[in-house]
Amino acid sequence: MAQSSDSAATSLFEQTMVSATAKVEAALGQFLPRAEGPESRLFEAMRYAIFAGGKRFRPFLVCESAKLFDVRSESALRAAAAVECVHTYSLVHDDLPCMDDDDLRRGQPTVHRKFDEATAVLAGDALLTLAFDLLADPETHERARVRIELVRRLAEAAGGHGMVGGQMIDLASEGVTLDIGSITRLQRLKTGALIAFACEAGAVLGRASDEALHALHAYAHDMGLAYQIADDLLDAEGDAAIVGKATHKDAEAGKATFVSILGAERARAQARMLSDQAIQHLDLFDEKADLLREAARFVINRRN
Amino acid sequence: MAQSSDSAATSLFEQTMVSATAKVEAALGQFLPRAEGPESRLFEAMRYAIFAGGKRFRPFLVCESAKLFDVRSESALRAAAAVECVHTYSLVHDDLPCMDDDDLRRGQPTVHRKFDEATAVLAGDALLTLAFDLLADPETHERARVRIELVRRLAEAAGGHGMVGGQMIDLASEGVTLDIGSITRLQRLKTGALIAFACEAGAVLGRASDEALHALHAYAHDMGLAYQIADDLLDAEGDAAIVGKATHKDAEAGKATFVSILGAERARAQARMLSDQAIQHLDLFDEKADLLREAARFVINRRN
Repeated sequence: MAQSSDSAATSLFEQTMVSATAKVEAALGQFLPRAEGPESRLFEAMRYAIFAGGKRFRPFLVCESAKLFDVRSESALRAAAAVECVHTYSLVHDDLPCMDDDDLRRGQPTVHRKFDEATAVLAGDALLTLAFDLLADPETHERARVRIELVRRLAEAAGGHGMVGGQMIDLASEGVTLDIGSITRLQRLKTGALIAFACEAGAVLGRASDEALHALHAYAHDMGLAYQIADDLLDAEGDAAIVGKATHKDAEAGKATFVSILGAERARAQARMLSDQAIQHLDLFDEKADLLREAARFVINRRN
Repeated sequence: MAQSSDSAATSLFEQTMVSATAKVEAALGQFLPRAEGPESRLFEAMRYAIFAGGKRFRPFLVCESAKLFDVRSESALRAAAAVECVHTYSLVHDDLPCMDDDDLRRGQPTVHRKFDEATAVLAGDALLTLAFDLLADPETHERARVRIELVRRLAEAAGGHGMVGGQMIDLASEGVTLDIGSITRLQRLKTGALIAFACEAGAVLGRASDEALHALHAYAHDMGLAYQIADDLLDAEGDAAIVGKATHKDAEAGKATFVSILGAERARAQARMLSDQAIQHLDLFDEKADLLREAARFVINRRN
């Protein structure tokens, strides 16, 4: 497939994103506990956090990687919902006053502002736990070996050697000038590990070959880093009205980013190179992988 | 076995508790990540939380229930460590300023006082995630079906329909007068569900019959409730110097407890009845269950 995207492909990509979002939101609505009983406040907060919007990019990656191996849609949607629960819990905890102290997310009050801090802590805890519950259920896959492999990979991606470790490094780095290697490692843990899990989940569900699994891992690695560099560029150069959130936050916080270290031009070139490289990792797949290829282009061309 | 404990049995029970504690602490020391790299603060906080002491009662229950089915000790210790990680994470989050706001636990600074709030939130998150990682590892059991059954049960016991749900009810009940049914349900979720998991884990690892599993579940249910009533009695009547923590906290907070509703005498009788009933549920097991029987006596006779 050619590297430049044409409008028809972009349109199919956008259509698929919209339809994947609708499907994963319907699934999440079904999987999240209903608000009833004296603990209903917890369930309301979990639903509020999950349904606060978002691109559902990780669920999209699960569903598209699952399609490569003809995984049935219900299986993929359960794994997609699990990933979104973990991503959402991390946002709820990150927004807390003791962490990033954000009052708004996507223009809406954050969970601790809408409810209270204790409820936000517990809602995050329950969403993380629900992710493992969803994966462990026999509905996710008939083979226990497949389900436990998903659990093991998610636990590693989300834990101290993955996402939470990355968040700790980020907090510990305030006021410290990181070099490019340290920033790359931080991002690989903080956002890359869960993106990699999302891309690998379909392969695990489809009992794919090691070669296919490694290709998707390499794709996720490069695409995830390109995504992060694009994020830094949007923060440095973006218009808050279009980006949809405050920009120039990194510079104001004195945070080292890919852009502050490389400069905008080299950062942009780096993102492009990573995006191309991500697409090359998909060479062993046929046109079924076209939307994953589009996704690698999308992450560096997006405006928000 | 007679209902009254004799000193030899008590002594064996105490010896086993001490030896189980040593074994599970050695296992935890091995399973917890080592403090290195820029994320070392996270790992230090996880270790600090885990090694702050405690009775290791849940790990003891895992190991004793595992012995009934001749489960190898390494398997039991991994499940025991997983339960202790979940229990510890719940304490770390419960101690946060937005929750119970405790500065001390067992006479030592709580995690957010020793480190900071953000690190405490993340250390709790990472401990919860580590619990699933431990269970999912092939070292825990050679059969994937057994490991995924443990994951599923732990996720249910720890999540919104279990421990976290109970914590939410507890927070939502401040200033509300609960009836005995509501308090029982609160405690069944907040502390009972994880205690039940601890007792069932050995049966799952040992691929025990449904009958044995149900017996252990029933045992855990009654013993856990007896434990909680004894806790309320210690709070209402105990000497802070012996109990090792501030007493009369419930009355000062105007919290409804088993003691405030039933009165001390009826609460004591209820705890004794539940303890006896718990022991009866173990009738299908031979003398291998004697230490579990002792545990049901211990929980109502303990002084701290």
